[in-house]
Amino acid sequence: MFEVKSYIQQKKQVIDTSLEKILTKSQASETLVKAMSYSLMAGGKRIRPILCLAACEAVGGVSEDAVTVACALELIHTYSLIHDDLPAMDDDQLRRGKPTCHVAFDEATAILAGDALLTLAFEVLATIPVEDGDRTARRLQVIRLISRAAGYQGMIQGQMLDIASEGHKLSAGELEAMHRLKTGALIETALTCGGLLGGADERQMSMLKGYAANIGLAFQVADDILNVEGNPELMGKAVGTDLEREKSTYPSILGVQAAREYSTKLVQSALQAIETFDKHADPLRGIASYVIERRR
Amino acid sequence: MFEVKSYIQQKKQVIDTSLEKILTKSQASETLVKAMSYSLMAGGKRIRPILCLAACEAVGGVSEDAVTVACALELIHTYSLIHDDLPAMDDDQLRRGKPTCHVAFDEATAILAGDALLTLAFEVLATIPVEDGDRTARRLQVIRLISRAAGYQGMIQGQMLDIASEGHKLSAGELEAMHRLKTGALIETALTCGGLLGGADERQMSMLKGYAANIGLAFQVADDILNVEGNPELMGKAVGTDLEREKSTYPSILGVQAAREYSTKLVQSALQAIETFDKHADPLRGIASYVIERRR
Repeated sequence: MFEVKSYIQQKKQVIDTSLEKILTKSQASETLVKAMSYSLMAGGKRIRPILCLAACEAVGGVSEDAVTVACALELIHTYSLIHDDLPAMDDDQLRRGKPTCHVAFDEATAILAGDALLTLAFEVLATIPVEDGDRTARRLQVIRLISRAAGYQGMIQGQMLDIASEGHKLSAGELEAMHRLKTGALIETALTCGGLLGGADERQMSMLKGYAANIGLAFQVADDILNVEGNPELMGKAVGTDLEREKSTYPSILGVQAAREYSTKLVQSALQAIETFDKHADPLRGIASYVIERRR
Repeated sequence: MFEVKSYIQQKKQVIDTSLEKILTKSQASETLVKAMSYSLMAGGKRIRPILCLAACEAVGGVSEDAVTVACALELIHTYSLIHDDLPAMDDDQLRRGKPTCHVAFDEATAILAGDALLTLAFEVLATIPVEDGDRTARRLQVIRLISRAAGYQGMIQGQMLDIASEGHKLSAGELEAMHRLKTGALIETALTCGGLLGGADERQMSMLKGYAANIGLAFQVADDILNVEGNPELMGKAVGTDLEREKSTYPSILGVQAAREYSTKLVQSALQAIETFDKHADPLRGIASYVIERRR
């Protein structure tokens, strides 16, 4: 029986340690670095980096580069949270149980800390301790994949749609299209980058993508359900906020029960997509169930 | 006699055309792309990309990659202007004769358009039409240089210092340190990337850096002087704003006359740094004088 919780715990530790090293290389006394570190080390779940490492292992890889790439994904995810929380966007006060970056510091610092984390992600990706041709080419490919997923045709476009949708009633199809951009694109890239670094062939890559598309959406549906009936203390942020803002969510469109069934169905599809993988894919399988069973 | 104005005009055309192509590859109807394009094509001087191309030529290079890298530099410069203009930062209403991005669209769109331009810069840098080993390695090195210069130890740190300094009186040394980060780092990188792509040796690279350090600062001193006595119609933005905000500037610390002498001295030092270069460096020489003679 695969112990997914201890797997997640162990990988989270690896990521946290690496992220801390990335930031402490600099002089940590400045306000900017403090704000970056404040949000980066605020106790995130590290889902994206863990998926990246698990995908690398699933195809039989043990690439040391995967940890670096996984950290870059978390830097990008954190920047997007800081900017999404800003007064001009979602205007959130609490994140991971702590005041959001612009509340703890100020708005200008939060904007710049986000900018800096995004830029640092690419610096990290472009820095290779020992250069060799294959590794260099792979890193460039990873930068291409991540910048596309995080950019104006991916995550940022999704955030635009999310903001534009407030107060409007979306159809289930429109909601899905929005989430596929806003969170799905970066989650898919976490898996494809992991696969790429682990040496996946085309068939494996296409299976990883199938897993990713379903798991990304399942993650979002579960998030929506937690916003309705989660425990704010466990989650470290307010619940019921989607309803207040008249956001279209899976529970608001389908009802909570049907939303829960939908998330279960998505997880089954994710598992199906990787069913021909061997036991190296057990972490991916475990994470799939964790995604909808988690309480934060 | 080298015609610097027509050189600048011609290179600006090359950059503008390439930047337009980068954005029209996508569906330009969406608000996000409109906002990105609005700021990107607002008539910027394109100093950074032109310096990049001129540095490439100065060392005898004709790299086709230089135009791509030059465009990425302008994408990053434009993102930084959009974010600097935000209400939480400098709260500027006018830029290049047009309403700033958050005025023409809204604050959320402006934040995201900036994020998207920054991310797009790295997508552009990571995309190579025909892969070969040398080119791939060079691009990765360029990404490393640019991300460092634009990041939390370069441009963004400079913007933090700039914001923190409002209302305080800086010494000439503190002012210089701030500008070396805020504008100097990216300008220096424009020149080192150009040199790298043109095949500069170590000696040439060090000379380009000497030119860059002086020209970056001269550019800033000239900007400060224009903010005191420039023509707002020609410049497309308000003047006298530094004084209103009690910003420390070269004219406010040294007086206008001494600031002008200082900028002339910096240009002379820039020219000296590249005096052993042959006629291929005439564009760099011409641009040095243009920097302090320009009226916008």
